[in-house]
Amino acid sequence: MAWAIDSKEMHEIELTGDVLAAQERLAGEVRAELARFGVRAFNVMGAIGSGKTLLIERVIERLRERIRIGAIAGDVAGSDDYERFRKLGIPAVNLNTETECHLDAHLVQHALEELPLGEIDVLFIENVGNLVCPADFPLGVERNIVVISVTEGDDMVRKHPKIFAQTDLVVLNKLDLAELVEVEPERIVADYNRLNPNGTIILTDAKHGRGIGEFIAALGLDSR
Amino acid sequence: MAWAIDSKEMHEIELTGDVLAAQERLAGEVRAELARFGVRAFNVMGAIGSGKTLLIERVIERLRERIRIGAIAGDVAGSDDYERFRKLGIPAVNLNTETECHLDAHLVQHALEELPLGEIDVLFIENVGNLVCPADFPLGVERNIVVISVTEGDDMVRKHPKIFAQTDLVVLNKLDLAELVEVEPERIVADYNRLNPNGTIILTDAKHGRGIGEFIAALGLDSR
Repeated sequence: MAWAIDSKEMHEIELTGDVLAAQERLAGEVRAELARFGVRAFNVMGAIGSGKTLLIERVIERLRERIRIGAIAGDVAGSDDYERFRKLGIPAVNLNTETECHLDAHLVQHALEELPLGEIDVLFIENVGNLVCPADFPLGVERNIVVISVTEGDDMVRKHPKIFAQTDLVVLNKLDLAELVEVEPERIVADYNRLNPNGTIILTDAKHGRGIGEFIAALGLDSR
Repeated sequence: MAWAIDSKEMHEIELTGDVLAAQERLAGEVRAELARFGVRAFNVMGAIGSGKTLLIERVIERLRERIRIGAIAGDVAGSDDYERFRKLGIPAVNLNTETECHLDAHLVQHALEELPLGEIDVLFIENVGNLVCPADFPLGVERNIVVISVTEGDDMVRKHPKIFAQTDLVVLNKLDLAELVEVEPERIVADYNRLNPNGTIILTDAKHGRGIGEFIAALGLDSR
């Protein structure tokens, strides 16, 4: 009576080839637009509460003197993250997706129209907070990043093999809480390395500013 | 240069009327099937790491002597939660949705075929871990429940107005971590009460077994 059901057997796949091709085309347009202005863009994915916004804030704090940074804040609703970016004085756009669980290249195109791309070196695109939907939608960025928190449990990687297999840079955040929530970071790191042997996983505690330098170096932004 | 974009203006809505009607019809079939066997079912939604599984485990531990409980474990991939339910000796089904970010009534129908409904009084359906997608898909249950954790930040409710407005029972979990992550539970409670004045929000610390009795009472399972 207890077994596993695989939805592929009974469920049509949502993303047909045509839709995927259209997304790839739009992502290509975003890529070209960013290249035209020499903007390096990063797609930051992760669940709500993984610490995406604070991580980006920490990077901005460290680099703002020598790199011009912009941000797109993607959320289903609300403007909390957007307002945090604006408080740091950087150009930012708020993208509310309403019923959509992810950003897509088309939405990013509209956001780019609102940004002064000629005055931005690095653009952080904070995706909608979950690890399921954003995986399927290329945004035309230089690099995809997944942020996870130890508070999400040490089965996090095993529950989302797809996004971790295809993401070469992972941030494991809130290291300061690991002991308290009885999660072993080593187990998450091992799961990720097994799934993606060529990927990089950075341990951070963004709240207390730890691991930010390593993250910046992994992004290739360490221009000292 | 900084303003908000609303995706409705530029983006077709994914769920057309036809799809919604089909989902409602399937949910009605699930409802009828559950009623035929006198099974009371609960759809438990919440992000990864909010503590859905542990909360359900705590309820099972308290009620198993007098109520026969079953579970459906919904996840994109993996069987960690399913195995946890099986360890408690209850009938359970693992539902891997692969690319889908939510369960739907059709998947639940297949899961019900695998469960001994005649031997189950209460069925917990643990949905896929995020707060965006599951909101749109009725499962034909008695009640929808959203579990959030203080570690997800105190802007959680404001970021997901839709699911909180339509969910009458919310569990705010991991109260033991509130001080550490500097989140004020009162703020989350106030946001929810404003959005859904008739809803109930229960504070729990499932790890240490606090608030479980209140949650059981809110479910109407307190049959002493």
